[in-house]
Amino acid sequence: MTVGSDSAGSVPVGAGVDYSRVFSQAIDRLHAEGRYRVFIDILRNKGSFPSARCFAGHNGPKPITVWCSNDYLAMAQHPKVIAAMEEALHDVGAGSGGTRNIGGNTHYHIDLEHELADLHGKEAALLFTSGYVSNEATLATLAKILPGCIIFSDELNHASMIAGIRHSGCEKQIYHHNDLAHLEALLAAADPAAPKLIAFESVYSMEGDIAPIAAICDLADRYNALTYCDEVHAVGMYGPRGGGISEREAVADRITILEGTLGKAFGVMGGYIAADRTIIDVIRSYAPGFIFTTSLSPVLVAGVLASVRHLKASNEERVAQKAAAATLKSMLADAGLPVMIGDTHIVPVMVGDPVKAKKISDVLLAEYGIYVQPINYPTVPRGTERLRFTPGPAHDEAMMRDLTDALVEIWSRLELRKAA
Amino acid sequence: MTVGSDSAGSVPVGAGVDYSRVFSQAIDRLHAEGRYRVFIDILRNKGSFPSARCFAGHNGPKPITVWCSNDYLAMAQHPKVIAAMEEALHDVGAGSGGTRNIGGNTHYHIDLEHELADLHGKEAALLFTSGYVSNEATLATLAKILPGCIIFSDELNHASMIAGIRHSGCEKQIYHHNDLAHLEALLAAADPAAPKLIAFESVYSMEGDIAPIAAICDLADRYNALTYCDEVHAVGMYGPRGGGISEREAVADRITILEGTLGKAFGVMGGYIAADRTIIDVIRSYAPGFIFTTSLSPVLVAGVLASVRHLKASNEERVAQKAAAATLKSMLADAGLPVMIGDTHIVPVMVGDPVKAKKISDVLLAEYGIYVQPINYPTVPRGTERLRFTPGPAHDEAMMRDLTDALVEIWSRLELRKAA
Ligand SMILES: Cc1ncc(COP(=O)(O)O)c(C=O)c1O
Ligand SMILES: Cc1ncc(COP(=O)(O)O)c(C=O)c1O
Repeated sequence: MTVGSDSAGSVPVGAGVDYSRVFSQAIDRLHAEGRYRVFIDILRNKGSFPSARCFAGHNGPKPITVWCSNDYLAMAQHPKVIAAMEEALHDVGAGSGGTRNIGGNTHYHIDLEHELADLHGKEAALLFTSGYVSNEATLATLAKILPGCIIFSDELNHASMIAGIRHSGCEKQIYHHNDLAHLEALLAAADPAAPKLIAFESVYSMEGDIAPIAAICDLADRYNALTYCDEVHAVGMYGPRGGGISEREAVADRITILEGTLGKAFGVMGGYIAADRTIIDVIRSYAPGFIFTTSLSPVLVAGVLASVRHLKASNEERVAQKAAAATLKSMLADAGLPVMIGDTHIVPVMVGDPVKAKKISDVLLAEYGIYVQPINYPTVPRGTERLRFTPGPAHDEAMMRDLTDALVEIWSRLELRKAA
Repeated sequence: MTVGSDSAGSVPVGAGVDYSRVFSQAIDRLHAEGRYRVFIDILRNKGSFPSARCFAGHNGPKPITVWCSNDYLAMAQHPKVIAAMEEALHDVGAGSGGTRNIGGNTHYHIDLEHELADLHGKEAALLFTSGYVSNEATLATLAKILPGCIIFSDELNHASMIAGIRHSGCEKQIYHHNDLAHLEALLAAADPAAPKLIAFESVYSMEGDIAPIAAICDLADRYNALTYCDEVHAVGMYGPRGGGISEREAVADRITILEGTLGKAFGVMGGYIAADRTIIDVIRSYAPGFIFTTSLSPVLVAGVLASVRHLKASNEERVAQKAAAATLKSMLADAGLPVMIGDTHIVPVMVGDPVKAKKISDVLLAEYGIYVQPINYPTVPRGTERLRFTPGPAHDEAMMRDLTDALVEIWSRLELRKAA
């Protein structure tokens, strides 16, 4: 494609740029680094997640077991969630038909915001079309409201927080992952009169570790900083009602803005923040990423309402998930595989090379019917490429045994390093 | 709220900032300008849109007629859409459980991308969680790939395009709305060797007018610029198969990147771009807003598939919608109301004052059961506040008569200016 090259009669003035070449080279760079991504084509099986069908590269669909879903508690197939969505679909229809301000604010949205505020013991909550958008829109908007704000950001924060901080135009100070001494040094060195915000996650899902929330809040108190905590991988999962790590550790009231997703443990799609009423009103009123977009489909909102309500009352899924994670971690460790042992539900296995990580994943799928995606840059830093398993309540011991045996065989076939 | 004020024993170092006051003042500014937004709390009625129920400020739900939905063709309640979503819900579940790369790429997503590519006669398409995200992510990412790119942007472009252009960090040149001479002057003055992109919409939904796409493409050819066209308010609505204005005017092949939403005429939720294979692969591989987020729920994707396929084959909804728009425009004009007569499906009525626009809307809802949201800054420039009606195939002449009579009565009650 050379834009303009077939323009009848007129000589392209700026014919210098060969767009087609620039775009192709961008793709070539990914191939050269071994991190070109191929999406696998799957469908889950009715009511029996983690079983699924894989379409590409076979004669007809092939049965597989999914080991890398963030539907951590299998809520995406929970009967209450399905029933609620079906009812909403028939009652009000497929989409909301508008932005929250113009025709797209339904009773479901309002109910869910109340439910989420209650989950975190906050005055109010605000829905977004995704967790990504909630982080981006909220962080970017704070700068408009707090001129001169300095944002202190954990070095492993998610891309959506990084995007929000970048778009805020604020000064950003990056502190070493979960390193309180470094964070304090940066806070102490900053202008005492400047507004400050500390942005971090509770559960870091690629590492499987947890932030020291209470200690971060102590620093925030000491240096008069606001706190922004992404609980995307923790909501639904931790705390007696699924309020996240902040609920488990009884520190939610010390966090200024809590952020979560509706697409992982809650099993549906969407994102939100919870905070005091004024902050929610500010973001609602000023954030372009909230204002100028069609609101979440009421069908999704109805499903999330059922999911959040169920997980507030039921511990069963959380208990089963934790048991599955513990079992898998010890099986992999016993087999000498380099599993990263953290105190969360995530089970990462370090590979340290993008090509090998992809190779292992390819063999698992092709030969064993096991689906786990390689995690490469930019999702994790280069040189720390890994596999990331997310066992859930529906992964049984036989599946774990199959997985462990397969990994041991592939590890020796590819002459990979075992655990130290 | 004063963060840190109750921190036991430690004196806040940076106690200078009173966050609570800053946030309250931000809200006060909106009240002072008369543009604080109150969301109305509604639910549509099963199978009978535009009828709905309004919850707030009444004793129990009150029946209303919705006049401001972007579900232009009432597809959100189309039986085929509902049936497809119900089937997907039972077949695969509520959410996708992952990003497109990690566990969230389903067969539905792939099918829909093929369907949308075909709709626009392009090699490929890419789904996003919303039209907003598709604009933001695509435009922001192009700069990384085309260093030194200059983006030429229509002054009335949507907030999501503006966000994408801002985040791209590119040089931006704003041309007067739909003004080819101004656009050409800017192109001619720019460095011929710099990569260039012209970003515009086909249908401007707040004005109800249409961009001269072919002439813009002529300029793009002449100055070797790429073209980016937001067809959010046109897809499903124009062209024999609903391919938008670019289909109707047979210019889709001249547009580098076409962008659309799945949440307006298609009635569900989500967004997309369509372009040649390499460009789609570049955005797929580099755009954070595409990569780092849970993919669209397969339930939504299944609904959109049904909607797009139906509107490719059926003209009935488009014909009925256009007839409704024409009838309403002439009724309002005959009654002497300041309707803005454009050649699109949108029916804006100019008010020119935010407080009056809100007042008219409040009276319509409270006294007439008619729901139309006032359109204030920042959605439109200050001083051009308006009402914006979106008649659809299901708005009948009796509803239009009620609306016109109500407006005439309110116009005289509030002593508003009639059409010149
Ligand atoms: C830490 C973190 N925050 C935010 C997000 C974005 O949430 P969502 O998938 O709802 O967009 C993700 C992953 O997707 C995440 O891992
Ligand atoms: C011109 C235009 N582009 C993009 C969008 C965003 O689309 P979506 O609602 O799917 O986010 C909108 C409105 O919402 C719009 O009016």
